[in-house]
Amino acid sequence: MSKNRLIYLPLGGAGEIGMNAYVYGWGKPGEERLILVDLGVTFPDMDTTPGVNLIMPDISFLKENIDRLEAIFITHAHEDHVGAVGRLWPELKVPVYARAFTGHLAQLKLEDAGQDPSNVEIVGAWPEKVEAGPFKVAFLPISHSIPESAGLVIDSPGGRIVHTGDFKLDPAPGVGEPWDEALWREATGGRVRALVCDSTNVFSPHPGRSEAGLKSEIEALVTKAPHMVVATTFASNVARVKTLAEAGQAAGRSVCLLGRAMRRMIEAAVKTGIVESFPATVTPEDARDIPRESLMLIVTGSQGERRAASAQLARGKYLGLEMAEGDTFLFSSKTIPGNERSVGRILNAFSEMGVDVVAEDDRYHVSGHANRPDLEKMHAVVDPEFVIPMHGEHRHLREHAKLAQANGRQSLVVVNGALADLTGPVPHVVEHVEADRVYLDGDILIGALDGIVRDRIRLALNGHVIVNVILEGDEPLGDPWVEIVGLPETGKSRASLIDVLEEDLGQFLMRAKGKTLRDDDALEGELVKIAKKTALDEIGRKPEVTVVMSRLEP
Amino acid sequence: MSKNRLIYLPLGGAGEIGMNAYVYGWGKPGEERLILVDLGVTFPDMDTTPGVNLIMPDISFLKENIDRLEAIFITHAHEDHVGAVGRLWPELKVPVYARAFTGHLAQLKLEDAGQDPSNVEIVGAWPEKVEAGPFKVAFLPISHSIPESAGLVIDSPGGRIVHTGDFKLDPAPGVGEPWDEALWREATGGRVRALVCDSTNVFSPHPGRSEAGLKSEIEALVTKAPHMVVATTFASNVARVKTLAEAGQAAGRSVCLLGRAMRRMIEAAVKTGIVESFPATVTPEDARDIPRESLMLIVTGSQGERRAASAQLARGKYLGLEMAEGDTFLFSSKTIPGNERSVGRILNAFSEMGVDVVAEDDRYHVSGHANRPDLEKMHAVVDPEFVIPMHGEHRHLREHAKLAQANGRQSLVVVNGALADLTGPVPHVVEHVEADRVYLDGDILIGALDGIVRDRIRLALNGHVIVNVILEGDEPLGDPWVEIVGLPETGKSRASLIDVLEEDLGQFLMRAKGKTLRDDDALEGELVKIAKKTALDEIGRKPEVTVVMSRLEP
Repeated sequence: MSKNRLIYLPLGGAGEIGMNAYVYGWGKPGEERLILVDLGVTFPDMDTTPGVNLIMPDISFLKENIDRLEAIFITHAHEDHVGAVGRLWPELKVPVYARAFTGHLAQLKLEDAGQDPSNVEIVGAWPEKVEAGPFKVAFLPISHSIPESAGLVIDSPGGRIVHTGDFKLDPAPGVGEPWDEALWREATGGRVRALVCDSTNVFSPHPGRSEAGLKSEIEALVTKAPHMVVATTFASNVARVKTLAEAGQAAGRSVCLLGRAMRRMIEAAVKTGIVESFPATVTPEDARDIPRESLMLIVTGSQGERRAASAQLARGKYLGLEMAEGDTFLFSSKTIPGNERSVGRILNAFSEMGVDVVAEDDRYHVSGHANRPDLEKMHAVVDPEFVIPMHGEHRHLREHAKLAQANGRQSLVVVNGALADLTGPVPHVVEHVEADRVYLDGDILIGALDGIVRDRIRLALNGHVIVNVILEGDEPLGDPWVEIVGLPETGKSRASLIDVLEEDLGQFLMRAKGKTLRDDDALEGELVKIAKKTALDEIGRKPEVTVVMSRLEP
Repeated sequence: MSKNRLIYLPLGGAGEIGMNAYVYGWGKPGEERLILVDLGVTFPDMDTTPGVNLIMPDISFLKENIDRLEAIFITHAHEDHVGAVGRLWPELKVPVYARAFTGHLAQLKLEDAGQDPSNVEIVGAWPEKVEAGPFKVAFLPISHSIPESAGLVIDSPGGRIVHTGDFKLDPAPGVGEPWDEALWREATGGRVRALVCDSTNVFSPHPGRSEAGLKSEIEALVTKAPHMVVATTFASNVARVKTLAEAGQAAGRSVCLLGRAMRRMIEAAVKTGIVESFPATVTPEDARDIPRESLMLIVTGSQGERRAASAQLARGKYLGLEMAEGDTFLFSSKTIPGNERSVGRILNAFSEMGVDVVAEDDRYHVSGHANRPDLEKMHAVVDPEFVIPMHGEHRHLREHAKLAQANGRQSLVVVNGALADLTGPVPHVVEHVEADRVYLDGDILIGALDGIVRDRIRLALNGHVIVNVILEGDEPLGDPWVEIVGLPETGKSRASLIDVLEEDLGQFLMRAKGKTLRDDDALEGELVKIAKKTALDEIGRKPEVTVVMSRLEP
């Protein structure tokens, strides 16, 4: 008879920064009772996922073992931790637990998805505990770039796991609880089997700086700016938005929040009591009538998102407001790798308008993640039997494991889909489950491997030729007809590409044997081959070819 | 009668980093004799230019005024300065002047394009001068990340212009001439009308470091590496390739160069006498038999280019060589903004193999461009009447102009297509000419505004529906037929998307009036509208729709 075991299975977040979803289990192999920590999204890009709206973890494993799943715990309200709750909860339908601010936003997501928001249960911080099957889970406050972030203390008959969630060690984070070492020592005290730990900033060598250090710098910048000041940061960084707004207020400026996400987040923070006081704000309508030098806008779009307020302002008027020469635009943020080009476009657009842009300046931004020395500090405080790095690309996880090992701790890289047994003296991966990605494409969920997005990429790279042929029995009826999309109209022969394609395809049809003409697959194959070859000769490129074949009754 | 004037007209490079092409002219307005400095390319990306092979400046202005163009001068052999010579020279057919190394590579480009390489004339450095119409042009050696870079001293009856080309102030660049302040003072002495100056690193606050400082760091790294070492840098950075190879040699390793561009560049350097000694290298075939700890590969692909050697090694075997656990991979380079994701994919692939990757580490890389204090130094050495920033995005040009102005110098931002008159006491833009971009797409040159690439982007974002209808007179012959590419097969109704589209389109056709059915445009418009609406209902997305309409003789 096999023994109970404690397992860890990341379905997302271990091999990427985004789409967090971590499974823990306790029980006999294959019968473990399960809990899920976080259920987030990641964002598409044109290179690999054109046209996709959102990317979510593949939770097939949970669906196939749905009777074993006890509950979902959400550590904090960032989209990469809570973003998939609305869309995927209906496939799981187990209780969701979170602290007030996070839970409030998770409830809004369930509502948006037409689900009952009361499925999200609000719980208090440690020492309060939630029982979920064999697990007892407590939310342990920690500082991050969003209010009310929590690590989880997960107790099971197989031992205690400490799951950090996203964190930084900030004694003065502005909004939300500060890093409280004594609390963490107390709550995680005793034997900790595994520390499952944020790896994002493992390559940043210096200890993290505090949010508190930004206040005077931002105030100085806003005060000395001669005209309108516009600042952007992540909407969810309530502490930063507050710091910016207070700087505006201190400089005698009216403050206006632009962008739906930002207003929603501040409302949630006020409603849940996270923020006790927030400077008075004016509406965009009122802002239009305020002299520029007395106005400060705080806007969404720090990553250059096309539809957010900063991109709109870069293109011209937005809600009646626009940038002008001498204005100041502050990116109180860091550009996430991959977003450099879209942020760059905005910087250049503002530059053309004569706006003074302040970007990528450490005086006005601190990271929400623990740097390398802070990770070592966390290892020391929790003092676990082993460290399992999470929340990182493979290179972050590997570096984090090496860091732990260099300090004499056991550590193991466990990637998405790898099921690790944490029971024995040495953690090890015992099996692999399907854990790819699912795309929200329009309103439809499609698999990353379905080939749909691959086909779209091919269309973008190669263009599209449509060949239309009508047959009556084994006789072509008239000439083939070609349409092109995304291809040059004229090729090397200086004739119309369509004409040359129609000519070559027509020649083939005239000569083709009845056997080929009667066989749909053979005929399509030949037509595709000829169209590609002709295009290659004419324009130096093999397009995607779709053959539309119509057979009329003879 | 209008007076002669001295003009400056960037056609590329002023508003982007890449695609350099700068026109100077002297003469009566509209009749100026012209010279072109540099003729480079820039590289496509999936966001804005999927499927495009290369991006080049639109030289319509030069073609329309071809009888006024005297010559082309190439400052150095980077692709963004010389890359379009092969493709565009046939449209200009004027002499090309360059120094030996640059000229050798430009000649290869003409050969590759089937043109006579002798149209590139090799000239010596200052004080040698080339006469081109009213201009006398001298190549003034300067340090950069490729050998034999030159600034240009351009003398005209309207005064002297100093065009820096790309540069850094490096007293010990390894290969190629060091920064020689005395030479520059002498050659640019006297009254300089305008300094047209590289702006790339205007946001880098500290003075640039020397290539010489890397040698001992790289040697230390290569020496202590326990297994195989692989290093990548730009192939054209001959000095760096040499430093890397010498480090391998010093560590007792056999050195193997991987990647065609790298071998070609080193061959050119040896052939033109730029490099006197280069460590002996082994072929990839021989490298396979050498113990890993005695081997060093120097490979192409520092920017994550899909087909370059480093990406191939990240995917598996390349020319019989492959990475293994414990190997070291050094990026002796900086990731260019926009390439973070492709470089990241390689870093993570190596991490999965257990390879130790060293990247974005200043100890192993210095920039080829002058930093902010170096730019101020250049301004001071040349001491021009005004500074015109070039080689930068708009924000770099603007910042560079502000820097010059802060030091009491006149400065003007002149962007692509802006024609500046440099004759009077204050430079000013007098007109704008067409100066967009041209894409090499397959083998065909297409305009950036032709809509071809825009159509491909739409296909990638929206997918493609093809509607096929056959009519006989005003009677539909059979049902409409739909094909989809890049779209989910099943929609919200759980029925096949194709079936639902065919059903809705068929319903419409049955009810449609003869007048609509006889009118191609009206019918197509209706079919597109219905297909988009049905798709929006079913899958939440409006696809691109192509209607293929066949009319048979009644």
